[in-house]
Amino acid sequence: MSDKDFSILNTIDYPSDLRQLPADLLPELCFELREFIIDTVSRNGGHFAASLGVVELTVALHYVFNTPYDQLVWDVGHQAYGHKILTGRRDVFHTNRKYNGISGFPKRDESEYDTFGVGHSSTSISAALGMAIASRLKGEYDRHHVAIIGDGSMTAGIAFEAMNHAGITDAELLIVLNDNGISIDPIVGAFNHYLTRLRATWQSNYLKDKIEKLATSTAPFNLLGRAAQHLNKGIRDLLPGKGDLFEAFGIRYFGPVDGHDIRLLVPLLEDLKQVKGPKLLHVITTKGKGYALAESSQTVWHAPGLFDKHTGEIFKKQHATPQPPKYQDVFGETLMELAEKNDTIMAITPAMPSGSSLKHMIEKMPGRVFDVDICEQHAVTLSAGLATQGMRVFCNIYSTFMQRAYDQLIHDVVIQHLPVVFCLDRGGLVGEDGTSHHGVFDLAYTRSLPGIIVSAPMNEQELRNLMFTAQLPSQHQPFVIRYPRGQGVMPYWRTPFEEVPVGVGRCIRKGTDVAILSLGHPGNFVLAACTLLDKEGINAAHYDMRFLKPLDESLLHEVFQHFHQIVTIEDGSVAGGFGSAVLEFMVDNHYQADVHRLGVPDRLISHGKVEELYAECGYDTMGIVREVKAWLVKKHKLRS
Amino acid sequence: MSDKDFSILNTIDYPSDLRQLPADLLPELCFELREFIIDTVSRNGGHFAASLGVVELTVALHYVFNTPYDQLVWDVGHQAYGHKILTGRRDVFHTNRKYNGISGFPKRDESEYDTFGVGHSSTSISAALGMAIASRLKGEYDRHHVAIIGDGSMTAGIAFEAMNHAGITDAELLIVLNDNGISIDPIVGAFNHYLTRLRATWQSNYLKDKIEKLATSTAPFNLLGRAAQHLNKGIRDLLPGKGDLFEAFGIRYFGPVDGHDIRLLVPLLEDLKQVKGPKLLHVITTKGKGYALAESSQTVWHAPGLFDKHTGEIFKKQHATPQPPKYQDVFGETLMELAEKNDTIMAITPAMPSGSSLKHMIEKMPGRVFDVDICEQHAVTLSAGLATQGMRVFCNIYSTFMQRAYDQLIHDVVIQHLPVVFCLDRGGLVGEDGTSHHGVFDLAYTRSLPGIIVSAPMNEQELRNLMFTAQLPSQHQPFVIRYPRGQGVMPYWRTPFEEVPVGVGRCIRKGTDVAILSLGHPGNFVLAACTLLDKEGINAAHYDMRFLKPLDESLLHEVFQHFHQIVTIEDGSVAGGFGSAVLEFMVDNHYQADVHRLGVPDRLISHGKVEELYAECGYDTMGIVREVKAWLVKKHKLRS
Repeated sequence: MSDKDFSILNTIDYPSDLRQLPADLLPELCFELREFIIDTVSRNGGHFAASLGVVELTVALHYVFNTPYDQLVWDVGHQAYGHKILTGRRDVFHTNRKYNGISGFPKRDESEYDTFGVGHSSTSISAALGMAIASRLKGEYDRHHVAIIGDGSMTAGIAFEAMNHAGITDAELLIVLNDNGISIDPIVGAFNHYLTRLRATWQSNYLKDKIEKLATSTAPFNLLGRAAQHLNKGIRDLLPGKGDLFEAFGIRYFGPVDGHDIRLLVPLLEDLKQVKGPKLLHVITTKGKGYALAESSQTVWHAPGLFDKHTGEIFKKQHATPQPPKYQDVFGETLMELAEKNDTIMAITPAMPSGSSLKHMIEKMPGRVFDVDICEQHAVTLSAGLATQGMRVFCNIYSTFMQRAYDQLIHDVVIQHLPVVFCLDRGGLVGEDGTSHHGVFDLAYTRSLPGIIVSAPMNEQELRNLMFTAQLPSQHQPFVIRYPRGQGVMPYWRTPFEEVPVGVGRCIRKGTDVAILSLGHPGNFVLAACTLLDKEGINAAHYDMRFLKPLDESLLHEVFQHFHQIVTIEDGSVAGGFGSAVLEFMVDNHYQADVHRLGVPDRLISHGKVEELYAECGYDTMGIVREVKAWLVKKHKLRS
Repeated sequence: MSDKDFSILNTIDYPSDLRQLPADLLPELCFELREFIIDTVSRNGGHFAASLGVVELTVALHYVFNTPYDQLVWDVGHQAYGHKILTGRRDVFHTNRKYNGISGFPKRDESEYDTFGVGHSSTSISAALGMAIASRLKGEYDRHHVAIIGDGSMTAGIAFEAMNHAGITDAELLIVLNDNGISIDPIVGAFNHYLTRLRATWQSNYLKDKIEKLATSTAPFNLLGRAAQHLNKGIRDLLPGKGDLFEAFGIRYFGPVDGHDIRLLVPLLEDLKQVKGPKLLHVITTKGKGYALAESSQTVWHAPGLFDKHTGEIFKKQHATPQPPKYQDVFGETLMELAEKNDTIMAITPAMPSGSSLKHMIEKMPGRVFDVDICEQHAVTLSAGLATQGMRVFCNIYSTFMQRAYDQLIHDVVIQHLPVVFCLDRGGLVGEDGTSHHGVFDLAYTRSLPGIIVSAPMNEQELRNLMFTAQLPSQHQPFVIRYPRGQGVMPYWRTPFEEVPVGVGRCIRKGTDVAILSLGHPGNFVLAACTLLDKEGINAAHYDMRFLKPLDESLLHEVFQHFHQIVTIEDGSVAGGFGSAVLEFMVDNHYQADVHRLGVPDRLISHGKVEELYAECGYDTMGIVREVKAWLVKKHKLRS
């Protein structure tokens, strides 16, 4: 589309502009906004289908509510592109998720319209409730607070904790339940079944027609409002559903209604502004709405990468030679191989069957794999319960989301010495998703736990062998295997299984000037760096430690006996991480050496390509070369 | 009571013995079991009222179910004393919570009847569901799994996550909702209001009489069962409640019923064994049942300490001179002092108003303090939401329970640079509650987070000053103040407020032979140790670092420039904790020194008095003296 095609959208820099529009132009604006998202995301990448699903809701919310004084909290934030475009960021939207560009999620630093930083799910009700309580304390009785939360996010425990509190307050809180039946993958649990029954009331109820006729009738636009003059009773009488689950929590339920009918949403939200206290509006939407392919293949189009918006062709890189697989695919396929031979193996994913590559096992071995929705806490304690009965559970959780089950890891697994295998996917920097999604604290927060095994494979073969090792009957400890997001390094990766002795690292390359100790995939950067250092006349030894816990003390004794210049490298926080553990070993064993710790520095890292972020943090290949050179030269000068 | 008074109880070593009893002796057994608990706890201490409340339930469950083949999972475990007494531990029950004695909570290592280790709340449904799913996979279709969970525990998110999963399975899972309206303090949220409405159906419904008449009529004992021959429909028709919230999750609801009527519970549980799939029995009990004082003052009698069982006098130590206060009281009173002057101050507690000493502020400043039930995740994100509006929130969470809000700490507070103040109560070893409750990982898991302030006061005055500092408008960072359970060291503690410069430690005592760096209350052990070391001719310097993050680098430069023997001491895990941070400083700044790290070693620490545990870990006063002496002597020998 040309600029001309965005003739309304281009007049809207801020919601104050939007609120000047006559209501009958809103459908056209929604069309333009949707096209703008399709156009930009097809060329720049990013999350796609979620924002298409809430175009009308976004426009309606900013039209009805007095943002930013009234506060919108978008849960997760995948769906907030329309919000960003309407709140001062249309012109920079093409930098979305790019290095030094705007964030793919609402972010407080970026705009006053982004009231709360998100990325992880299910925080919006708690956050908006906090804002609403503060407003009342400050006497801002006219201020509204809206949490927009998907049905997928509603399954996480914190959402229920928030409702348990909200329901006893008089906070001006509107929860908009954006019900599209899907998070990234389809939602599967009992809560979804409940919503399905509620949805059915809308689909079958004759009142649906009545509402829609009211809403789509000719002007005045607020007919629905008028029809429901006695607000509380009125609106509810017009709406078909009886949300007893929400009402049980003391939250008044309204809905379900069609979330794509802007002529309905605007007057309904106007009316709801008059309803006091905590309330929930149940809105039915279609993820990917307005782009037919996305509507029909929602998981594929959650974040499809670049595509031709006209043909729907998703661009994939073409390669003449075999490429390394994703670590995720290695995990998924290896687990099936192992599970075919070991019938105690089970697998758990909290709502990431596609992302983790467990979906094939779900199809092939139903009953042995469970998607438990966005419920990391339950995922871990369920795994523990299964483990008490002799099951060998591979609990696959993204590193950043494992933070949400930290207590369950400690209390239900570690304290009970249960041999659950945690495959911490997306460990380390993750790239474009940025700060909220980097899995950089896991090495620090797991290594202080007694009796846990913490490992990180350097490549696909190591991942396979660690998984093989973790499921052996001789293993009786909690076992973490942490691997990164994305592509590995071995085009031919289906190697035969070999047991990896727990706590045993390996010498990749002998050397004389400096010893580089790596944990996990950055070992590959070290491989390349050693070659470059050779050319500079620096002979580096390289050790792939494989295990953060237990550390290979025998190997470390060898290293500290032979080297006084040692580099540690990890794709994780240097504060308390792998390098820190090496220092503990060194001092406990009375060695003295210069140790240089490379990894994620002690500050928040933003978004961009992983290569850009590794470079910024200084532990990519060139960073290693530069650091080692500068350091050895400096030491040499100091000595001479 | 004499042994004679336990004439039935003494014949029951295991549930298999119990199941030999004729049913009409069960009421008498319940009486004896209750007396046994009263008798033992009055003389030995421990959790009291919770177990009294489930005497009939405990007897009925072991009578009806084929334990340990059928599996009972007790949530939290405060209430499991009767269970322990009936499952092989009557003779050792007097060692409950004592050093080297049995644990105060169910523990897998202790008994095959303890199917799952507990201590933290709300894990039982997930764990029992895991067991039930495993049983089905193994073809054990006759095996039953029961989660016994209090209404307080049901508020935590993981319980809803577990129901979301359970409701779509065909697992043989019975959830017994033990509804007594209280956890340690009364339950306050919307879920409790919901249960109150359900309870009312029991209290008012004429069917109550009908059920009770059936149940208490003359033998045969299974009249209720007969009356409900068409089981699923039958029982439900006899019961008054319609638990729509649970039914929404696909879990069949039965209840509410009187949990103290063993003649009702036994046939009802027998009948429920025949009901397939996940189901919930709502049981109304009275915490403290059978001990009038405990029934009327349930919070006081949750864990009253030693008492005269006849008079109800709770024994308190009498002191001639003023004693130091509890840190908790210093926190509670100091916060009120500050809140009187700073009206942005608010406070949050997840279900611990008494334990945290926030209850006085709740009374005095309602609307500025919230008890949010057992909902740590919500507590933190709510605090973040309040902080976005300029409120200075003191979020008080026990260190061990903060593990459950780790993601919210990172994602909602740290990443957003919000100046929430976290008062991590019961940091370090906590004593008799043991492994599940020790708050020993917090130093390691907070210090890797960018931009957070982590502090630990050495005494009451420091606690007050850190709290004062944290609420100053000039403070803009997340601020952790971590202090221990129990009594401080300053009888006269109401000192004037002084700002503590962030990241600045203090030299307590100069010295020459060794520098001892302490964080938090163990500084007091160091004080005493230095005096003893003086007598041994060892002149120790002592630095109270106050801040783990940011470390006082200026002070550390001074230390490392002057000392080559350095001891660090902390009441937390040495793996990744304070000592580890000191090592990072040392190596990053190219110092070389022998550093000896004292603290909680890298293994799970059991229960006992804190003094016993500090001694075991070697960082009490004598431990410090011993370690420093041995170390300096050894070094001296090595040198000479």
